[in-house]
Amino acid sequence: MAQEQLWAKDLPLDQAIHRFTVGEDPSLDLELYPHDCVASAAHARMLCRVGLLSEADTQQLVSALKRQYQLSLTNQIRIDPLQEDCHTAIEAGLTEQLGEVGKRIHLGRSRNDQVMVALRLWCRSQYLNLGWRIVKLARVLIAFGRRHAELPLPGYTHMRRAMPSTYGMWALGFAEGLLEELEAGEGLYRRLDRCPLGAAAGFGVPLPIDRAFTAQLLGFTRVQRSPVDVMNSRGRHEQALLDWLVSSAATWEKLLWDLAIYSTEEFGYIKLPEAFTTGSSIMPNKRNPDVVEIARAKCRELRGISEMHRQIMTGLPSSYHRDFQLGKAPLLAGVKLAETLLGVMTRLVPVLQPDAARAQAAHTDELYAAHAAYQLVAEGLAFREAYKVTSAQLSDGSFKPDRDKLKATHIGGAGDLQIEQIENELLRREQLLVSRTRQDMQMREDIWILEGA
Amino acid sequence: MAQEQLWAKDLPLDQAIHRFTVGEDPSLDLELYPHDCVASAAHARMLCRVGLLSEADTQQLVSALKRQYQLSLTNQIRIDPLQEDCHTAIEAGLTEQLGEVGKRIHLGRSRNDQVMVALRLWCRSQYLNLGWRIVKLARVLIAFGRRHAELPLPGYTHMRRAMPSTYGMWALGFAEGLLEELEAGEGLYRRLDRCPLGAAAGFGVPLPIDRAFTAQLLGFTRVQRSPVDVMNSRGRHEQALLDWLVSSAATWEKLLWDLAIYSTEEFGYIKLPEAFTTGSSIMPNKRNPDVVEIARAKCRELRGISEMHRQIMTGLPSSYHRDFQLGKAPLLAGVKLAETLLGVMTRLVPVLQPDAARAQAAHTDELYAAHAAYQLVAEGLAFREAYKVTSAQLSDGSFKPDRDKLKATHIGGAGDLQIEQIENELLRREQLLVSRTRQDMQMREDIWILEGA
Amino acid sequence: MAQEQLWAKDLPLDQAIHRFTVGEDPSLDLELYPHDCVASAAHARMLCRVGLLSEADTQQLVSALKRQYQLSLTNQIRIDPLQEDCHTAIEAGLTEQLGEVGKRIHLGRSRNDQVMVALRLWCRSQYLNLGWRIVKLARVLIAFGRRHAELPLPGYTHMRRAMPSTYGMWALGFAEGLLEELEAGEGLYRRLDRCPLGAAAGFGVPLPIDRAFTAQLLGFTRVQRSPVDVMNSRGRHEQALLDWLVSSAATWEKLLWDLAIYSTEEFGYIKLPEAFTTGSSIMPNKRNPDVVEIARAKCRELRGISEMHRQIMTGLPSSYHRDFQLGKAPLLAGVKLAETLLGVMTRLVPVLQPDAARAQAAHTDELYAAHAAYQLVAEGLAFREAYKVTSAQLSDGSFKPDRDKLKATHIGGAGDLQIEQIENELLRREQLLVSRTRQDMQMREDIWILEGA
Amino acid sequence: MAQEQLWAKDLPLDQAIHRFTVGEDPSLDLELYPHDCVASAAHARMLCRVGLLSEADTQQLVSALKRQYQLSLTNQIRIDPLQEDCHTAIEAGLTEQLGEVGKRIHLGRSRNDQVMVALRLWCRSQYLNLGWRIVKLARVLIAFGRRHAELPLPGYTHMRRAMPSTYGMWALGFAEGLLEELEAGEGLYRRLDRCPLGAAAGFGVPLPIDRAFTAQLLGFTRVQRSPVDVMNSRGRHEQALLDWLVSSAATWEKLLWDLAIYSTEEFGYIKLPEAFTTGSSIMPNKRNPDVVEIARAKCRELRGISEMHRQIMTGLPSSYHRDFQLGKAPLLAGVKLAETLLGVMTRLVPVLQPDAARAQAAHTDELYAAHAAYQLVAEGLAFREAYKVTSAQLSDGSFKPDRDKLKATHIGGAGDLQIEQIENELLRREQLLVSRTRQDMQMREDIWILEGA
Repeated sequence: MAQEQLWAKDLPLDQAIHRFTVGEDPSLDLELYPHDCVASAAHARMLCRVGLLSEADTQQLVSALKRQYQLSLTNQIRIDPLQEDCHTAIEAGLTEQLGEVGKRIHLGRSRNDQVMVALRLWCRSQYLNLGWRIVKLARVLIAFGRRHAELPLPGYTHMRRAMPSTYGMWALGFAEGLLEELEAGEGLYRRLDRCPLGAAAGFGVPLPIDRAFTAQLLGFTRVQRSPVDVMNSRGRHEQALLDWLVSSAATWEKLLWDLAIYSTEEFGYIKLPEAFTTGSSIMPNKRNPDVVEIARAKCRELRGISEMHRQIMTGLPSSYHRDFQLGKAPLLAGVKLAETLLGVMTRLVPVLQPDAARAQAAHTDELYAAHAAYQLVAEGLAFREAYKVTSAQLSDGSFKPDRDKLKATHIGGAGDLQIEQIENELLRREQLLVSRTRQDMQMREDIWILEGA
Repeated sequence: MAQEQLWAKDLPLDQAIHRFTVGEDPSLDLELYPHDCVASAAHARMLCRVGLLSEADTQQLVSALKRQYQLSLTNQIRIDPLQEDCHTAIEAGLTEQLGEVGKRIHLGRSRNDQVMVALRLWCRSQYLNLGWRIVKLARVLIAFGRRHAELPLPGYTHMRRAMPSTYGMWALGFAEGLLEELEAGEGLYRRLDRCPLGAAAGFGVPLPIDRAFTAQLLGFTRVQRSPVDVMNSRGRHEQALLDWLVSSAATWEKLLWDLAIYSTEEFGYIKLPEAFTTGSSIMPNKRNPDVVEIARAKCRELRGISEMHRQIMTGLPSSYHRDFQLGKAPLLAGVKLAETLLGVMTRLVPVLQPDAARAQAAHTDELYAAHAAYQLVAEGLAFREAYKVTSAQLSDGSFKPDRDKLKATHIGGAGDLQIEQIENELLRREQLLVSRTRQDMQMREDIWILEGA
Repeated sequence: MAQEQLWAKDLPLDQAIHRFTVGEDPSLDLELYPHDCVASAAHARMLCRVGLLSEADTQQLVSALKRQYQLSLTNQIRIDPLQEDCHTAIEAGLTEQLGEVGKRIHLGRSRNDQVMVALRLWCRSQYLNLGWRIVKLARVLIAFGRRHAELPLPGYTHMRRAMPSTYGMWALGFAEGLLEELEAGEGLYRRLDRCPLGAAAGFGVPLPIDRAFTAQLLGFTRVQRSPVDVMNSRGRHEQALLDWLVSSAATWEKLLWDLAIYSTEEFGYIKLPEAFTTGSSIMPNKRNPDVVEIARAKCRELRGISEMHRQIMTGLPSSYHRDFQLGKAPLLAGVKLAETLLGVMTRLVPVLQPDAARAQAAHTDELYAAHAAYQLVAEGLAFREAYKVTSAQLSDGSFKPDRDKLKATHIGGAGDLQIEQIENELLRREQLLVSRTRQDMQMREDIWILEGA
Repeated sequence: MAQEQLWAKDLPLDQAIHRFTVGEDPSLDLELYPHDCVASAAHARMLCRVGLLSEADTQQLVSALKRQYQLSLTNQIRIDPLQEDCHTAIEAGLTEQLGEVGKRIHLGRSRNDQVMVALRLWCRSQYLNLGWRIVKLARVLIAFGRRHAELPLPGYTHMRRAMPSTYGMWALGFAEGLLEELEAGEGLYRRLDRCPLGAAAGFGVPLPIDRAFTAQLLGFTRVQRSPVDVMNSRGRHEQALLDWLVSSAATWEKLLWDLAIYSTEEFGYIKLPEAFTTGSSIMPNKRNPDVVEIARAKCRELRGISEMHRQIMTGLPSSYHRDFQLGKAPLLAGVKLAETLLGVMTRLVPVLQPDAARAQAAHTDELYAAHAAYQLVAEGLAFREAYKVTSAQLSDGSFKPDRDKLKATHIGGAGDLQIEQIENELLRREQLLVSRTRQDMQMREDIWILEGA
């Protein structure tokens, strides 16, 4: 048996190279397809405006792009591996339909700024979608928190029972964490709010293109001025989107870890609904928290995806390198993962079942020891004395704290959860996201309507 | 020889454990020391305001804290490993000086929110410092760009000569990239602009503390409401600061890689000044770009530091865990690295020497081929024709592009570098940073002045 | 327009949860399918041997498994998402075909050790495949090195011309690096050479199973004794395989970076064959090194994949957690990436074209300065003097080194490349891999042959 | 207030650059110092042997190196920042003491192979030290396992009680995991067992140096032949050492996570000795598992350190780059961390206190359900029937498993923990490590003894 036979033969050279360079683009680029159509329409309209494209040609191009756009939205587009990516596929479609006119779309731009603008539009719309999904998760956390605002739950530090807390306090902590991410999302949005179109291959074009006009048509408030920076920003905005998700996922992960632990028989504070658990094939009376475990692992996976993206997109001199192509897969994977995970958690939180009896049983007087000592100090005792008194009471069993009196009533304490304020802030965040989403959708409708038409 | 003797003996158990748990805190915490003094003063003043501390005690505490603050600023503080960290050291100092009064500072707070507020103040001041250093780097890049705005430099894609460009275009690309980071820094600032004090161990305290008042004294516009979220945010803000630096460093890295390549004998577009290079001990006529290489490696190191921080601070349930202590070292290391690196680059850029002759020689007519073809298309030729014409001219040597006519005059093109606009935007960013820094400094002066005093 | 309409509706709960927990398993597990069949056959034969399964039942099970094995090898198996993974699919197939007998395969094992053994066999066979592909790459590097053993090439340090070298020396450096990885692969093989079967869910089974027998049937020389360790090793061996690839890829990356730089117009030492470059659509006379760039990026992607795997598989208590399921995707992706990349490089190296003239032109006398000084020292001059002499000669242009006399003749020097020794070592590595591969293949043939039959 | 005053002034340029390039080398290189002395002695002896150094000069050099070696072992060496690193410091010391003779040590080598060989020797000795410390940890785990071999402990999957297990089974699982790492360490040792000396700057030297002789003197069985590969291996071996530690730490982390959970009040299977816990300042009756938490976090920190090292050492063309200097800090940090962590765990395990009563209480009959069903199947019942029977018994409370009969008696089961076999294997591993350590120590004694002397 010849050694060659031990392993499979390779493809012919040209096919192997083609497959290697094309990679996953034909499937990944379906995501970018509609965005490239939209940006192409803006480019055509700009060319017309500055006199580089006739009105008739523009009309034809925009109509054909609109049709490709609609087909791509309804999953009726396939990118032939021979076409390699969505940019070539769109142009091939235009040329097939319109002949030489189809080719005029490429005047004054390059595949380099074409992919930049499509990615920018895609990132912007994904940001809006994910932001809204975070709003939804925050909302169900608030609802859970309000429902169980007064229900006692031991507060832990070092995974040891430490202080009195409530289910409400616990849930609202996550909600406020998400609110911070929603606010931080604004910074991300501003990063994305610069139009790269017109940078061409990274050095501009010797034509009187109107970059401010394309920016405006596509709903950007600013032009990303330097063509060199446009190319240097490949990966930068995508990474900022992933960083934002990874930061959010640090909060999701804490929630999921808590659920994994609180739903053990030993802790028992939360019952996971049966739909979110799985039976064991060989242990009849056991139910496993598979959904929570997978969700928890996905938080780590997201970090891994983000780091993979960073690895791929860094370590190079300025300008364009083909290396960047490989960044699309982790970007899309990370966004898709976050969307799925937010969906699962948003369905899970409303059906979590507190086990009030278990929590109550663990919510012992001892948890009030520090609180009681604080009170004594506030009433004038020296620290040393206060702790001595409390410790002695704990030792001889006489410690009987007045739980109501020991409630924290300051901002954020169990007695002032600030639910209304948190809800109002969330509402403002949501309104901004919705209004931006509407603008984005409106832009996608208006882009096809020619001024003169 | 007994095998035990092969390796060194270990420490006695208690010492080993103490050293293990204390770790690097005694040296790292010197960074946090002044911030903890400031926050402690705010806490004391608040206790006084709500009647939990007498005016006389408050006066004593604030005075003693001011003195510790000043000592720490002038490096006259040492933290004894027995004291473990700055929080204990400060309290020990107060107690030594003031007796029982010293202990009253701890009423209504915990080491957990004490470290949170000190870290928050530290992060805020580091952000302001680093932001200003990025401004400085952007400024020297703009100055370089203006000085060499018209000097031709081949533009590269795929590390292959591609298009006409200029040294000015090249340098301004980095400047605009930094501007984006300065804008994104605003989002970071808003994350940091929430006061965690009052969260205590993560569940509040049963005392009528006034969290809004401490927030205001410390220059925060908002209270971080949920004590649970305060604990959950350990690592989150620090990571956001590191992420911001890592994003910036992606631009620095491109600049440094370009310098490493452009200063080779083979490319030769840039001469590194002798102060930034090192001679070879065994190769007399060789100079190595050590500073550029180390700076480039530091961009990767920064990514590594940031990932180390992320590893340490994630993967845990909600609330406080001692694990978090280990996050301080990479946080401080990352910030220090960025500060040093920005300093070196800001000194390097002004003394970079373009080699106009080498660049000119490489800036051949061929680079204008695409531009010329675009022009023909703009003048009405079909694409196919335009490329045929240009290709034929290239082949028979008759290609003689009119370089001036082929200059990109749109926004960001070599003919419209937008230097003034970029400078104005930079100025606005700087003004905001300076004004915030002044506020931060003013707060550190005002905090010691008691209302009634 | 209601806000709900802004984003797509979600799936019904049960479908969403099912899709979430099943994930990519139905497609990923096709890779594990044949290995699970093989391990199942070994398990059945062991049950028979210890009297827990009749010979007739064993015969039926093994025959049915063989058929599933063959179908899976020829891609005729599809895993229904309802079956979730290959383990259920195989058992479902057996039960469908054999009724109650089919279910007996599950006696004395669990899905937990079933996936462990399938992964172990898969990793082992992938290791052998990849090892052999590294041998092939090393071989073409040696051939290239031998062909151009004497062809001068400047040797670089700090990306600056430093010393005399040759194309042969350059290529053989990579070959020896790969040899080290092949040797290190042996350590990996020994990690993999432990049979996990019999651990069941991680705590063994109360049946007299013969773990040594299944280990032997499956070609393992050892049993992985502790069932607890079997579960703890989920991710450990997979990570070791990825670590090994990542270490190898550090060498691949250096080769690819060199090619990217040596093939620039400025360096010009290597011409990339046209099949490995891509033309530019808008710059007629430019060819881009896309294959080299993508290959270089894939080295970084591999590091990212490996880190993602590590993230997912760590951070948990001992024993089995559903989190582990997510590790399969990066494991398979990393192995596939390495296989593809090795294939491309192995085809690229033989067709690399040295540009002797360019290299010769850069291979100036100056490169011999340190060598000449060494010679003078060896001849008795003091160091200070030797460098003075050489420097003076360089300055006044009289430096005329005798290049032949200055050749390094020690082990590994340009005068003693040790090609034969490197080749012999490579041959021994290959023979070991081939012999192990044959054993592995033989095992897959023998497993279906029952002793008594 | 001028804005310049807002932040501190920078250093003068030459000092800033010097500090930047020197970095942490003066302190880090103290670790490499003795190894560089040893390697230098070998180099001198080789030069003498091939006639490039007189016997008298060699005698002087070796004596002076021995003295520096001894001073460095007793921490009496300081590296002046002006000397930058240990290589220059050693040579400066020799020159100061011996004049021109001191400089002759540099004949036929370069700082590049000097740092390579010092790092190689350092890595080898660290590997031996760490290997031995892993042996110690494995040994206390085995002792714990033997002591509590029969003590019941619930076995968990998905963090849910699943199966009967014992403390012994639990502890031995970790021991076997460590054994695998010790075996894998052999592969690492073989990587390290190649002498890089003689590669000079990466291209050899034109002198008749005897690389096989220096290799032998330094206790290497092989020469790392290719000088190009020597430079390419910078970072590769160090990374392999870190990868090995990171793999081991995956097992340590599981142990520590288990301890963190098993020592909660809710689980309660393990009591942490008081010396390993910390009291809470504000909660009198609470003890926190700080040591376990910090140790757990250090496992993550180690992963972060390893990734930082990888980031720094990859992404570059072949040959030497100054970037590599930055890899020393994470390498040393990672090794030091592992040493400390192993020490702490080795002290912790022997004093862990099982809470037999708590474990017994949780070790309910239900855990035997699957075992009992298996037994019924083994006795001839169909699967469906067996599970029906067991489930019915569980439901009606009649399930009374015969625990002794349901013990797993196969290899690795609770009834056959294979303690002796594991101990024997550990002993063999230890003996190999000890014998190699003795060789290494012997080499350090013999290197100073000149042949002719």
